[in-house]
Amino acid sequence: MKFVTFEKSDKTVRIGLLLNEEYVVDLIEATGDDLPANLLDFINSHEKYMKKAAELISISVEDSAVHRLSDIRLKAPLPVPKSFRDFYAFEQHVKTARDNRGLEMIPEWYEIPVFYFSNHLAIKGPDEEIVKPAESDWLDYELEVACVIGKEGRNIPAAEADKYIFGYCILNDWSARDLQRKEMMVGLGPAKGKDFATSIGPWIVTKDEVEPFKAGKGFNLAMRARVNGVLLSEGNMKDIYYSFAEMIEQASKEVTLYPGEIIGSGTVGTGCILELGPKIHRWLEPGDCVELEIEKLGVLKNTIIEG
Amino acid sequence: MKFVTFEKSDKTVRIGLLLNEEYVVDLIEATGDDLPANLLDFINSHEKYMKKAAELISISVEDSAVHRLSDIRLKAPLPVPKSFRDFYAFEQHVKTARDNRGLEMIPEWYEIPVFYFSNHLAIKGPDEEIVKPAESDWLDYELEVACVIGKEGRNIPAAEADKYIFGYCILNDWSARDLQRKEMMVGLGPAKGKDFATSIGPWIVTKDEVEPFKAGKGFNLAMRARVNGVLLSEGNMKDIYYSFAEMIEQASKEVTLYPGEIIGSGTVGTGCILELGPKIHRWLEPGDCVELEIEKLGVLKNTIIEG
Repeated sequence: MKFVTFEKSDKTVRIGLLLNEEYVVDLIEATGDDLPANLLDFINSHEKYMKKAAELISISVEDSAVHRLSDIRLKAPLPVPKSFRDFYAFEQHVKTARDNRGLEMIPEWYEIPVFYFSNHLAIKGPDEEIVKPAESDWLDYELEVACVIGKEGRNIPAAEADKYIFGYCILNDWSARDLQRKEMMVGLGPAKGKDFATSIGPWIVTKDEVEPFKAGKGFNLAMRARVNGVLLSEGNMKDIYYSFAEMIEQASKEVTLYPGEIIGSGTVGTGCILELGPKIHRWLEPGDCVELEIEKLGVLKNTIIEG
Repeated sequence: MKFVTFEKSDKTVRIGLLLNEEYVVDLIEATGDDLPANLLDFINSHEKYMKKAAELISISVEDSAVHRLSDIRLKAPLPVPKSFRDFYAFEQHVKTARDNRGLEMIPEWYEIPVFYFSNHLAIKGPDEEIVKPAESDWLDYELEVACVIGKEGRNIPAAEADKYIFGYCILNDWSARDLQRKEMMVGLGPAKGKDFATSIGPWIVTKDEVEPFKAGKGFNLAMRARVNGVLLSEGNMKDIYYSFAEMIEQASKEVTLYPGEIIGSGTVGTGCILELGPKIHRWLEPGDCVELEIEKLGVLKNTIIEG
């Protein structure tokens, strides 16, 4: 199943289920208030609600609770997740980004999956405009996949971690490389280099839909990024070095994870301009349209605007 | 005024106003539900509620809404803040910590106040036990002061920033130095070195109460830390290099700040074992009691336990 958060023409915000990537069933309208009004509450109690939601897959598209995708406006599926951790789990990205700066690979990278917390209060949705930070001239995208935690847990072993995943979505970890470079010289972060926007969406796909593609530590799902229609990044989610299960094991050590927390994979190899270098593409500018695509997860599109 | 969150003997959790550091007025009981049930909601709309709360300062301690501090259990004043940013704003701490590792001071530190996001879902309160992470042998405290955002804002200039502060409290940024050292070699974070616990409290003191002590970029308020009754750290909040106004300016650049977000100052000089060195004190162990004291803000006490 694919879950969305959407705004109707009367500005009401609802959660819905996507049908054939063409229609959205309003979960409240279709069930007469039996389901929660936002996706965070739904995920929190999804074990209770999933069956009811699954029944709606066969609803008639003529039903008044069903809307054409073109008649509604998608928002970030989780407009305010409980938290946002971003990992650094694709080897090629780390290697190339360091190589570009003349740096060797870090031995510790192979020992533990490392992450940082970012701003869960600056989440953007599909088609939402991204404001270029006024002080940055080096704006970049990052092509990532994210998992959404579905169940509370603590000290979760990797072997058990799949049970704690609700689903997956595309994630764009917008980055101001000049701000990031400066603040990281001080030895903390990134924070200001990343806190202005993170896009997720267009929907959250439940884990059963990607299970058949399991390969390596990830899934055999092609990942692509296009800027103004030109293909710049091409990778595959199966090349991930640390599985989401291993990331969850690390994140939950001595820490309780809650439903609705988001975990980003880090950038796939070739998945950002920093890695590709200036010969391939300049930094992003107002007017640029960035599309991230991951097989089975959809396309997440955003346009840059001036502040 | 000093605001607390507390648990009554019947396990009900309420918000209250502290009287003479001896009594707590239950805000709901005293006003008949006219005030919100948690401090996050109160802070969100505090411009509407402050007058009503202020009237309770003169309530009789015989009133049934008034409880002895010894009859209730204080919790973290904001059990789940909207977010937690931690800065690095005391020069002496940064200098000494680097000097101990044979490193020079970082020029960029003097150019911008730098911070990282930490885990706002692992906040602990006064007297709450702190679980030593099983994989860490280098457990440390950090003596900090925090401000609580009271009003939504974006691109807030430092000169205006005071209006966005609701109040202040003591903050202990518990740190697993061995985990932190390892993960930071990879160039991100800290995250696992800090995500298991952050204590705040014992109450949030509204900004008017510290205003009279304004000095330098901070306030003339002594800061002390004791481990098992022995004074280890001694500093003053006036020695801060970046004011909270400057931190808010930085945090809010291109980012919306919301009521209930917490901003930590970073450690005051001498305010942690890492800085003091092993000749002064060993790392913390189960059974150790750590008391942080800041004049006018109270004493925040926690005991370490085995996991």
